[in-house]
Amino acid sequence: MKDLPGAHLAIIGLGLMGGSLAASLYSHCSRITGIDQNQESLDYALDKRWIDDGYSNLKDGLSGVDAIILATPVRTILRYLDELASILDQECMVMDLGSTKREIVQRMASLPANIHSIGGHPMCGREVSGVFQADPEIYRGRPFILVPHSQTSDEMTLFANQIIHRIAAYPVSMDPIRHDRLVAAVSHLPYLLACGLVAAAEVTGNQDNEIIWEIAASGFQDTSRLAASDITMMVDILLTNRKAILNAVNLFQHQLDKLEHLIAAEEEEMVRDILVKIFERRKQLNQ
Amino acid sequence: MKDLPGAHLAIIGLGLMGGSLAASLYSHCSRITGIDQNQESLDYALDKRWIDDGYSNLKDGLSGVDAIILATPVRTILRYLDELASILDQECMVMDLGSTKREIVQRMASLPANIHSIGGHPMCGREVSGVFQADPEIYRGRPFILVPHSQTSDEMTLFANQIIHRIAAYPVSMDPIRHDRLVAAVSHLPYLLACGLVAAAEVTGNQDNEIIWEIAASGFQDTSRLAASDITMMVDILLTNRKAILNAVNLFQHQLDKLEHLIAAEEEEMVRDILVKIFERRKQLNQ
Repeated sequence: MKDLPGAHLAIIGLGLMGGSLAASLYSHCSRITGIDQNQESLDYALDKRWIDDGYSNLKDGLSGVDAIILATPVRTILRYLDELASILDQECMVMDLGSTKREIVQRMASLPANIHSIGGHPMCGREVSGVFQADPEIYRGRPFILVPHSQTSDEMTLFANQIIHRIAAYPVSMDPIRHDRLVAAVSHLPYLLACGLVAAAEVTGNQDNEIIWEIAASGFQDTSRLAASDITMMVDILLTNRKAILNAVNLFQHQLDKLEHLIAAEEEEMVRDILVKIFERRKQLNQ
Repeated sequence: MKDLPGAHLAIIGLGLMGGSLAASLYSHCSRITGIDQNQESLDYALDKRWIDDGYSNLKDGLSGVDAIILATPVRTILRYLDELASILDQECMVMDLGSTKREIVQRMASLPANIHSIGGHPMCGREVSGVFQADPEIYRGRPFILVPHSQTSDEMTLFANQIIHRIAAYPVSMDPIRHDRLVAAVSHLPYLLACGLVAAAEVTGNQDNEIIWEIAASGFQDTSRLAASDITMMVDILLTNRKAILNAVNLFQHQLDKLEHLIAAEEEEMVRDILVKIFERRKQLNQ
């Protein structure tokens, strides 16, 4: 299998993440083919010279490629993995950028022997979506989780690491269960909290009037920002990581209940002690 | 009573909000006295020429002032209102910038007749605190809620509006119950969600290891940002707006429960419908 500089890559899904990957890699591999159902996205990436050619369907675009990056929502990745098995006759490497990993690497492990694969998940993102928001620097300094499976070869892992190095991210390896549990807590739970917050304000506003959206200040904007995430991406995440997400929601509810009861009981010192610990942890994150 | 340009103001509490007010008003009134227990804060504001003189205690600083702005945490405002009654012998206007209003305007309504007062709450802020973060532009374009009480005179309301005009905010009038209910939903609830999120991630991280804080991306940072708010300010808010906050928490929990059950039941279309409505509302807020 080829090293990154000599490889012909296909990026399937030119959204924020796929587009940013093309923008970051285009001068570091021999060729990039873009595949997206949206012709405007292809045109934009072609115009930027992030891709060398663009196709709207898998079959046309994958002839002769050495490596494929799947950068679509999770359930589309699952469908494409099934299709790849029948399309690819060459030796080919496959990595995905999907937000949940259990179902994806399970599917990868059962692919034919000519398809070498590894699960991937770059831990960065914005609540905006689409190739028009793509940014070659989006991966810089961020962890890129690699999720190998029983059939993942050393060559595949090496190639994935070459990509990660080129986009200035750093690799973190973990198994799919652990990945899905951790991202449920730091990524999928925050989305649901943002949604619940907007929904709660909506109900409060309806009892009253629209003034509630006017007085919502920067704190509300920050806390609710994720509620503007791409819906298709999020529905795929919620449905393919259901158990871990419901666990994370329960963990959260337990913490909120504890605070709620202490506030109701006016247990000032206990409330303060908990909030101080949380404050210190959040300050460490420093963003 | 005097108009703003001829008035000698005292700002009690030179933190983020009080400091920003001084920075925004200093050339638009005859004199500003700063009162703060922290000498460094006074020195900084004096050095910036935002205040003309600084005092660490109320009695020394309030001789001859025409108007007082209370810009401390809520329960300190309540204590200071009690003290003002015995300190002030001149006619004096008093406005506060406190985050909850029911207890404050109740206390204001019972002050002696020489003290004219109105509740105030500028709807802006940052999770940083202290005069060193003060910004004269912090109020620009933001709503400034005025909460008059049974004893609030037209002159007091006019003076408050002169301040609001000068700092480029715009006035919104409401009664204290409505104020406390609305800010519970858009300001105090988000704080508790941010805290619960950090606490839930902490528990998840403890089961595993510190990698969770590394992979927490911008979405987590945004959603949890308010957890770094000033603790004393927040404890005062939680304790003086307990009922409205517990109501807002219950409203939120109901919304989260609904989503949780639909996800558990894999009710994809219903989940999507709810998320789309929330998405559209959040997009309208556009920040």
